[in-house]
Amino acid sequence: MARKAAIIGGGVIGGGWAARFLLNGWDVAVFDPDPEAPRKVGEVLANARASLPALSDGPMPTEGNLSFAQTITEAVEGADYIQESVSEKLELKHRVYAQIQQAAPQVPLGSSTSGFRPSELQEGAANPAAIFVAHPFNPVYLLPLAEVVPSAKSDAQVIENAKEILREIGMFPLHVRKEIDAHIADRFLEAVWREALWLVKDGIATTEEVDEAIRMGFGLRWGQMGLFETYRIAGGEAGMKHFMAQFGPYLSAEWTKLMDVPEFNDELVDLIAGQSDAQSGHHTIRELERIRDQNLIGFLRVLKDRNWGAGKVLKDHDRRRQAALPAPTPETAQPMEMARMTVLPGWIDYNGHMTESRYLFAGSETSDAFLRHIGADIAYVGTGFSYYTAETHIMHLDEAKLGDALSGTVQVLHADEKRLHVFIRILKGDTPVATLEQMLLHVDMKAGRTVTAPKAILDRLLPIAEAHRALERPKDAGRHVGQRKG
Amino acid sequence: MARKAAIIGGGVIGGGWAARFLLNGWDVAVFDPDPEAPRKVGEVLANARASLPALSDGPMPTEGNLSFAQTITEAVEGADYIQESVSEKLELKHRVYAQIQQAAPQVPLGSSTSGFRPSELQEGAANPAAIFVAHPFNPVYLLPLAEVVPSAKSDAQVIENAKEILREIGMFPLHVRKEIDAHIADRFLEAVWREALWLVKDGIATTEEVDEAIRMGFGLRWGQMGLFETYRIAGGEAGMKHFMAQFGPYLSAEWTKLMDVPEFNDELVDLIAGQSDAQSGHHTIRELERIRDQNLIGFLRVLKDRNWGAGKVLKDHDRRRQAALPAPTPETAQPMEMARMTVLPGWIDYNGHMTESRYLFAGSETSDAFLRHIGADIAYVGTGFSYYTAETHIMHLDEAKLGDALSGTVQVLHADEKRLHVFIRILKGDTPVATLEQMLLHVDMKAGRTVTAPKAILDRLLPIAEAHRALERPKDAGRHVGQRKG
Repeated sequence: MARKAAIIGGGVIGGGWAARFLLNGWDVAVFDPDPEAPRKVGEVLANARASLPALSDGPMPTEGNLSFAQTITEAVEGADYIQESVSEKLELKHRVYAQIQQAAPQVPLGSSTSGFRPSELQEGAANPAAIFVAHPFNPVYLLPLAEVVPSAKSDAQVIENAKEILREIGMFPLHVRKEIDAHIADRFLEAVWREALWLVKDGIATTEEVDEAIRMGFGLRWGQMGLFETYRIAGGEAGMKHFMAQFGPYLSAEWTKLMDVPEFNDELVDLIAGQSDAQSGHHTIRELERIRDQNLIGFLRVLKDRNWGAGKVLKDHDRRRQAALPAPTPETAQPMEMARMTVLPGWIDYNGHMTESRYLFAGSETSDAFLRHIGADIAYVGTGFSYYTAETHIMHLDEAKLGDALSGTVQVLHADEKRLHVFIRILKGDTPVATLEQMLLHVDMKAGRTVTAPKAILDRLLPIAEAHRALERPKDAGRHVGQRKG
Repeated sequence: MARKAAIIGGGVIGGGWAARFLLNGWDVAVFDPDPEAPRKVGEVLANARASLPALSDGPMPTEGNLSFAQTITEAVEGADYIQESVSEKLELKHRVYAQIQQAAPQVPLGSSTSGFRPSELQEGAANPAAIFVAHPFNPVYLLPLAEVVPSAKSDAQVIENAKEILREIGMFPLHVRKEIDAHIADRFLEAVWREALWLVKDGIATTEEVDEAIRMGFGLRWGQMGLFETYRIAGGEAGMKHFMAQFGPYLSAEWTKLMDVPEFNDELVDLIAGQSDAQSGHHTIRELERIRDQNLIGFLRVLKDRNWGAGKVLKDHDRRRQAALPAPTPETAQPMEMARMTVLPGWIDYNGHMTESRYLFAGSETSDAFLRHIGADIAYVGTGFSYYTAETHIMHLDEAKLGDALSGTVQVLHADEKRLHVFIRILKGDTPVATLEQMLLHVDMKAGRTVTAPKAILDRLLPIAEAHRALERPKDAGRHVGQRKG
């Protein structure tokens, strides 16, 4: 049975948490007295559905059930995890916790607070040990970071369980050692924010120029390495000590305005808001969200391909999920479904359709999964042997578009000691959008020649080939380019 | 004739400038009294050669000539642009400028200084009007940002010319309106650096935890939108004013330590350097550079695909270069070279070879260029017509590896009003690594059926088809998968 998360507060952050839990197969009950909450959560969920699956290389779990509770008590009933994302008012949070813990005092209760320390949140609570900070970053459904901050009163086991739950929904729990106002990341954001307000107020830069100064330079660095690792490189072969010796002395320079803060008044608000309109006002907030999400998907996929930083979190998440999947049952006279894919933004051409080469990509994903299934996996390739594709014939039959769910099936036309002749269908529902006929050869990579596959692989492959002999031969098998149809 | 850039100071930053100019076709003379300078510049250049071409979708210009000058006078002789990247000592910079301007007083002279204002740099100069700040970000050969800061004494025309030169080498010149210590971006970096030193010193976080707090969350956001655009979204439909009303009051909160700076002493240096070793010491600096560069290429390609932020700069740069290329001369009995590509890191599979689907990608790049050549370009697709690929046959003949330079040629086998039957060779030097036989159909996209191509296209296509009739028919044309060779 699906586990249940209670989401208290259904704004952008609460909605993001709800989406993350739902898309990872949890049931979610949201409580928010705002009558607009279902619409707001629905909008965040729509964004999440359009983006989060693009980060996964395996099938997504069945989405959980979303409900809106009338009371906090109803929301937290039977919950395995509770996340609070109400307004940043301490007294409000305390009232909410009292209601929560009256019904569910033992359930882990994370707060999305950006500013309060866990010990402040725990004041006067029925069970302070269950309360901690779990501070996410917008968009919650895409960014992996959750700062997990316990206080001395927190139960260490509750914190470990909560971190495990966060990992299960694809997040990176960063355990903060000592509580401090605004935790870690928001302290940096606050510092940059204060400096940026000064620069705009003093007419050094507009909001747009500030943004360009970030995203054309160090912002790109920080998506993949943080401050210290970046500076370690800047130090060159001499490393971090050299860097510090070089730049340390500037600590006393007038390089930031941060010894002071700008006065917060209407004039400052109007200045910033007006410049922001000029910079971004030609996009609606919804458009900006979609642009941001697609960019983030792109970055995250890059890091995933390279198994680095946030991409490592995604890979671990896939692995965790894959381990929970049932193995396919192959030796029947059916083409075997080997892959499920979603058409990602990067797969689309200027026609709005899936790029030609992505049909072969989908075919490769399918045949790779089949090869893994018969034991020719990465570990096997590491021994110096592999199946190489010698030849492919592709029929383009229909068009796939952004967000389409595709599956790939394999029918073995023929297999022997050295050769593997397959027919792959890339399906949208039951309709093939493309078929690929491929000849693969088992090769000794060092010797650079075709050799007999080992018994372990043939013992898995040949029974499938035998079972598939009962299947009808696809009419497009054996075609050459330009051949008349029929 | 190639233009010449003089690079004064050949460290990591000077080397990055040298690489950017060289790979964009400029000749470069480096002056640096350090006998290690040629090695250091060589290492940066090797990194740049392995990464910068991956951002381009067209052929790179012929690399310029690199020389090491014995004197500043020799370096700046005949230079069209001078970039100074010597140590951050004002008195040294003044001495260098005196020597430069004795020989070349009129040549634009940009400084890579992170901290000094242009008016400080200009003090005592023979021609202050030619001196300005052009502050780049490491790695200079990949990150587009260059902060261009003039003072009141700078010549406006010199600044505009310099910005144009920076654009020509693929950079994004950010014109800073008023001079200020540390310009714009480094003020943010300094603020974050100071806060981070406090967090480590106070035992709140290690260097690794600080880095994770950045790259798992807001760092990913900042590679594609800056501070203000990100917060505009956070404000939701109510926009920037709402965001400010919500977060403005925290300006007075104790959310940063920045009212003070940590004392810079050996203890702090040892703490930071020790933690940094624990975090990153298992990679050499060279390895970290390569990891960083490949990640940045990935991010930049994502943004380029989406024509957003730094990716827009890359697209503009391609367009600029393409406009300067000679058109191919097609109507001869030769397969036409339509594309040149470099095998990018993202194209490589776990075997270390080019991923199967990238051969079709290379083929598509080639056929797309051919379609553009006959007038079936994006503008034409916008009118509702296009060539669709119906069928493809691929022969995998050899392996392409990371960094290989490939070219794609088109031989027209047959063309008529509706059909275009081509044979594409993907070549490494003169050796085909793959061939692709394709049938393309001219379609009315709205009606979803094959229709006659317009005269304008046929007038360009049919003479090529006629000329190619004289070519020998490739032996692999008309093959079906699994057919015996010979």
